[in-house]
Amino acid sequence: MAIIVKKFGGTSVGNIDLIRNIAHKIAQEYGSGDGLVLVVSAMAKTTDELFSLAYGISQCPSRREMDMLLTAGERISMSLLSLALMEEGVPSISFTGSQSGIITDDKHGNARILKVNAFRIHEELAKGKVVIVAGFQGVSLNKEITTLGRGGSDTSAVALACYLGAEKCEIYTDVDGVYSADPRIVDHPAMIKSISPSLMLTLCYSGSKVLHPRAVEFALKYGVKVEVKSSFTFAPGSIIENPPDMKINYPKEQNPKEDNMEERTVSAIAHKEALICYKLLVTDAMLEALSTWNLEVFKSYVIDKNIELFIEAKYEKEADYILKNRNIEIVDKIANLAFVNLVGLGLGHDPAILASVMQICKPFEIVRCLNNEQSVELLIPQPYLKEAVQTLHKHFIG
Amino acid sequence: MAIIVKKFGGTSVGNIDLIRNIAHKIAQEYGSGDGLVLVVSAMAKTTDELFSLAYGISQCPSRREMDMLLTAGERISMSLLSLALMEEGVPSISFTGSQSGIITDDKHGNARILKVNAFRIHEELAKGKVVIVAGFQGVSLNKEITTLGRGGSDTSAVALACYLGAEKCEIYTDVDGVYSADPRIVDHPAMIKSISPSLMLTLCYSGSKVLHPRAVEFALKYGVKVEVKSSFTFAPGSIIENPPDMKINYPKEQNPKEDNMEERTVSAIAHKEALICYKLLVTDAMLEALSTWNLEVFKSYVIDKNIELFIEAKYEKEADYILKNRNIEIVDKIANLAFVNLVGLGLGHDPAILASVMQICKPFEIVRCLNNEQSVELLIPQPYLKEAVQTLHKHFIG
Repeated sequence: MAIIVKKFGGTSVGNIDLIRNIAHKIAQEYGSGDGLVLVVSAMAKTTDELFSLAYGISQCPSRREMDMLLTAGERISMSLLSLALMEEGVPSISFTGSQSGIITDDKHGNARILKVNAFRIHEELAKGKVVIVAGFQGVSLNKEITTLGRGGSDTSAVALACYLGAEKCEIYTDVDGVYSADPRIVDHPAMIKSISPSLMLTLCYSGSKVLHPRAVEFALKYGVKVEVKSSFTFAPGSIIENPPDMKINYPKEQNPKEDNMEERTVSAIAHKEALICYKLLVTDAMLEALSTWNLEVFKSYVIDKNIELFIEAKYEKEADYILKNRNIEIVDKIANLAFVNLVGLGLGHDPAILASVMQICKPFEIVRCLNNEQSVELLIPQPYLKEAVQTLHKHFIG
Repeated sequence: MAIIVKKFGGTSVGNIDLIRNIAHKIAQEYGSGDGLVLVVSAMAKTTDELFSLAYGISQCPSRREMDMLLTAGERISMSLLSLALMEEGVPSISFTGSQSGIITDDKHGNARILKVNAFRIHEELAKGKVVIVAGFQGVSLNKEITTLGRGGSDTSAVALACYLGAEKCEIYTDVDGVYSADPRIVDHPAMIKSISPSLMLTLCYSGSKVLHPRAVEFALKYGVKVEVKSSFTFAPGSIIENPPDMKINYPKEQNPKEDNMEERTVSAIAHKEALICYKLLVTDAMLEALSTWNLEVFKSYVIDKNIELFIEAKYEKEADYILKNRNIEIVDKIANLAFVNLVGLGLGHDPAILASVMQICKPFEIVRCLNNEQSVELLIPQPYLKEAVQTLHKHFIG
């Protein structure tokens, strides 16, 4: 029996109708004989609501109790989905992270997965049931309930797929797949049918929201085949996988560009809006702050005696607070920056590619530009973002 | 019949005894039934000698004629190896790049492979012969002889392996495999048994000389399995490949760290010595120069209005000449820099990792430090290089 893991995010299970729709689609697949494991997030907004309830009571709530509270969110969505499946006549059972055997370290609010003891899932699959698992949560070796932090449900799904020896991990979301640029900025970007995990990792770290980088790291490390697809249509989406086994498929059928094997290609352009650059002196206090930093840093550069931390504007107050609290002087603070990353194999370290990106982006007042192995990254003022992405997409992708 | 491609570099075929040794080892493998394709470079020093002959005649020799001249180098080594195999009683035949069907664009001296028409190799393999192919060279669509530039023979071998549908591409060299650091700097670094192509690509772009990045890009793009091993012992070396197919191998047998699946690990530390940083104003003239730049740029950063090009010291005179020739002002020039790169999955964008690298390297006067998806890169003054690599290796790898 092949096992397929399917993950449904918060917007995909956002209301009763959506949950019913998923149950209906699953019921159609159920007869195929594959073992189906469904990983669900909390219904959209549930987590935010639970957060505001907690902060209504305490300004600095205990992390352990927050984990107890927040994990209620997936309990609701998983049991509702299980009920909807039963209504469709599909036998199903829901499990918490702990019941599914997702073992984590004990860092409440941001736990990392140590291993998965998935025997209960195997047992229920063997009985012919669809198994529904709460994403985002696990249990520590001390039996404490933990949450995995950002990207938690994606990571739960990929980890389960790995341990269950699943055929594929499907991530259902509100878009059809991975695009060559954000469709809200570029008209009709290309849908990417297949992309390597390392390029996908770079995209995810560069602002693409379709998958969390942590889940992609997991897939990359353990060779899990991931597909991103629409939770509304269930149509084939984008597959994140290594190139097919050459022995079987080459030279003819699979090679899309066999007349120009070494061509440098830009696969996609990712971007991140509204960044703030904090320029700080590299000091012991700053390094100490950084080593226990619990705000997401989008990007960081050390340039001579300074470190530049690029942080999303929404975290500005928190960052200011941390720095003030630790008496770390802010040398300079530049707001309204945007990050653009051209991602593709063969872009690495080529001065000509760098020159052409710089030439194209000359009107956009480049603040930083770097050429990595599989990308060319740019920082520009926010007002130029849209035009820069459009212009680069037109030039490099078409 | 499985096909194995084996590439022998210049030092591996550096003299008659070495060539005889290879022929002897190949004779032992010959009986196994695998089809063997051997890609050879010119004997060590031959290319340099041909270069100095040409520059003795002309200060600015025609690139086309240089290609005619230089390709004689592999003709010598390939026919000698073929003769040595015949002496061992092994039927063999040697082919030039052109005869092997390696089709390139027409950029003499730095051609890129368009495709491979390998039917002659298939024919000779079918007759039971060992086929020896000249690396580093090809033929343009206009039937002009071309050379592939740096890393050419590695790239020839991987491209052939791809088109032949080879089981594996073995790169034979004067070391046993890929190490976790340079053994000349770190005592007893770990030999890496298996590494992903994307991490290997970063290592190769960061100063590891064991494979050319262009060949790794090829392997990454087309899923070619590559092994780096010793041309003296033929013992098993380092395999560059994606993680094994999870469906077959997981969860138990293959997972080396199954009790800490999301651990961040440093796989290896690469370095590059003797870099010069040219700081230039970003101007139209500079971008124009960069777009036709034919010197290797090791790394480049655009910081505000300046571009910093990091170039190997051996190219200093040429770089000075190009810049002077184009009237590009050098804002600043800093010599004696070294680059160190910690490479590993899961290092991406973590402030704590950055802080710990910075803390460890505080005594080494960090010039630049950047955290990428799968690496943390550092620029430091050359005199600290050895101690920095040793200290980082001890801390992160052991």
